[in-house]
Amino acid sequence: MGKYILPKGFLASGVHCGIKRFKKDLALIYSKAGCKAVGIFTKNKVRAAPLIVSKSILKKGKPIRAIIINSGNANCCTGWYGVRDAKRMISGVCDNLKLKFNNVQVSSTGIIGKRLPIDLIEEGIPKLVKSLSEKGLKSAASAILTTDKKIKVGIEKFKIGRKEATISGIVKGAGMIHPNMATMLSFIVTDAKIDKDALKVALKEACDRSFNSISIDGDMSTNDTVILLANGLANNMTIKRKTKEYKAFSKALKNVTFKLAKNIVEDGEGATKFVSVYVENAKRTRDAYRVARSVANSCLVKTSIHGENPNWGRVAATVGSSGAEGIKQNKFEIYLDGICVFKGGKFTMPSKEKFYKIYKRKNVEIAVNLNSGKKDARIWTCDLSKRYVEINSHYMT
Amino acid sequence: MGKYILPKGFLASGVHCGIKRFKKDLALIYSKAGCKAVGIFTKNKVRAAPLIVSKSILKKGKPIRAIIINSGNANCCTGWYGVRDAKRMISGVCDNLKLKFNNVQVSSTGIIGKRLPIDLIEEGIPKLVKSLSEKGLKSAASAILTTDKKIKVGIEKFKIGRKEATISGIVKGAGMIHPNMATMLSFIVTDAKIDKDALKVALKEACDRSFNSISIDGDMSTNDTVILLANGLANNMTIKRKTKEYKAFSKALKNVTFKLAKNIVEDGEGATKFVSVYVENAKRTRDAYRVARSVANSCLVKTSIHGENPNWGRVAATVGSSGAEGIKQNKFEIYLDGICVFKGGKFTMPSKEKFYKIYKRKNVEIAVNLNSGKKDARIWTCDLSKRYVEINSHYMT
Repeated sequence: MGKYILPKGFLASGVHCGIKRFKKDLALIYSKAGCKAVGIFTKNKVRAAPLIVSKSILKKGKPIRAIIINSGNANCCTGWYGVRDAKRMISGVCDNLKLKFNNVQVSSTGIIGKRLPIDLIEEGIPKLVKSLSEKGLKSAASAILTTDKKIKVGIEKFKIGRKEATISGIVKGAGMIHPNMATMLSFIVTDAKIDKDALKVALKEACDRSFNSISIDGDMSTNDTVILLANGLANNMTIKRKTKEYKAFSKALKNVTFKLAKNIVEDGEGATKFVSVYVENAKRTRDAYRVARSVANSCLVKTSIHGENPNWGRVAATVGSSGAEGIKQNKFEIYLDGICVFKGGKFTMPSKEKFYKIYKRKNVEIAVNLNSGKKDARIWTCDLSKRYVEINSHYMT
Repeated sequence: MGKYILPKGFLASGVHCGIKRFKKDLALIYSKAGCKAVGIFTKNKVRAAPLIVSKSILKKGKPIRAIIINSGNANCCTGWYGVRDAKRMISGVCDNLKLKFNNVQVSSTGIIGKRLPIDLIEEGIPKLVKSLSEKGLKSAASAILTTDKKIKVGIEKFKIGRKEATISGIVKGAGMIHPNMATMLSFIVTDAKIDKDALKVALKEACDRSFNSISIDGDMSTNDTVILLANGLANNMTIKRKTKEYKAFSKALKNVTFKLAKNIVEDGEGATKFVSVYVENAKRTRDAYRVARSVANSCLVKTSIHGENPNWGRVAATVGSSGAEGIKQNKFEIYLDGICVFKGGKFTMPSKEKFYKIYKRKNVEIAVNLNSGKKDARIWTCDLSKRYVEINSHYMT
């Protein structure tokens, strides 16, 4: 099965049902056994219908057996119809797989405010179910994409005692990516047997330093969803919190979300550079994030990176206007691609040779040392290109 | 004197001293009589040297007679030299105009982190002083510009009793404009005789709904300064707060700052559209501003306006993610160019004819009715164009 393996007992598929013109637009993930399931959803006050439906099903705590996802239409701001259509997607899966309503999750991404072409989806579900396969992860990963250029898959194998377990995840991202999760759908499945409480904490920890630490353009979407399913078929002793086994699970999960998050930024709309913003030695973690996000979201910083123009002044100005506490002009330092450019309130005047190496590579690094405490933060983002403006001038949500 | 008149007793000039290659880069405003002076400065924690110097002089409360301004170099992040160079600019004016150090203000805009070519400035001051003229406002207005395309001048005449008074203002803006004032210098002069306390309040009120209510790209600069001088030569009875005369003064001042702020947005880097964002019926004023700023700073909203693509979904998503209190998906309404597109949690489906008129004109309007209180806010901004990316990829601060 090579690169795109699924954990034991999971099948997946992706087909074209007609929401989009040519590309795959309907995906299914299925487990032969009931799964413990946890999810994280957007904090946007405007929420898409499938998200409302999925969240309420998760609350009931029944074992989850399947997730159905469509791309090309977000089923958001669609009023009463939206909820009904999301439920019809679930019912379609139930009919074809002999499942109960509360065993299924539903998710959508794409244009906002247009009714879902639910008939097309319902007609597509039998084919979708028939295509289910242990090799279907790649198809599913491609069926959830919108403006993404590439599929994004993360897989980790790890040991729990003598048993081997697998975590496989897929994600769609591209524009609108922002801390607190935006236009991002991620579905992660594992055959590890794990306590639900442990599963929840592991997902939160993994998201905080991955999906919640990236930013493309500072906007936050209405459909963001991360769902994690664990079917227990690895047959290990149930993992509980604060054990050695939990650590192994948590580490593997972090590796998966880390890779997926990185892939999202690399695939950011119009992105030509991958930018890591590090903030060190802040008084509080929130101050560190505040500075990191200000820098990562600054259009002026992002365009200067695009132009390979080491404009440290814009970084300094953004640090100063971030609103974080403990910022003192004479105290903080800025390093661009490892070269100190700002210290003691002024430009350090590095050699021309060094200075003109800054921002030249595909991977760019901005580090800010606040020298006022011990907390740190990291945000990944990309540059702001003319291509970004081009894509987003014309795409209808 | 036509369009560019100065109030009684004021002279101005603008010359080229060599900071920039060809364009004017040094400006002077002079009053024959001592002025009451008030100022508003950036909230950025990184502050340029001239700003530190000017602020400390203002604090002393001596009558102000002159303001010297250079463009092309911000004298920011220049350490100990920066303060000395700013003081040398003042001393140059003092020597040539027989003034004392505490009678002069200094201001700079342009590249960050490079030492000011103070010798060139000192050599230019005699010529600058010689050029002082009642007709010099236009020259001064052009000498303070950086990436601005046009000079920006606002003038109001008004009556105080039987006396006529004038308020004349100039501003430089372009990129980085943001609420709380960013890369913006404005110098406003009046011959009205007014109590200092009243002058201070009038400036704050005027700035709140003008310079502090605009946004180009969400960044905040290190040099932002508004200085208002009143020399009293109109010879009216001194204006005090809460009088009819104060109202007339305040109104005229607001008209000036209003016009200057509007000009800044119209001249925003790469701007092709002028965008007004109105938020009505919020619970608190801060919620109204929070929503208005979120919409005005959203790259996705701004690119969709650039593409004349009435993507109301992005506006709805931004309202939802603004973090303002009292946002309910089913309660707020969105109007684009006066056409209701979102109500009751969904797209209102206006006629195609109406819908495709949206965003087509140069002046675009986004109105959000939160239906949860009585407070409102307005932010002016512009679209986000490929030209913006072009300009800012290459400009060194």
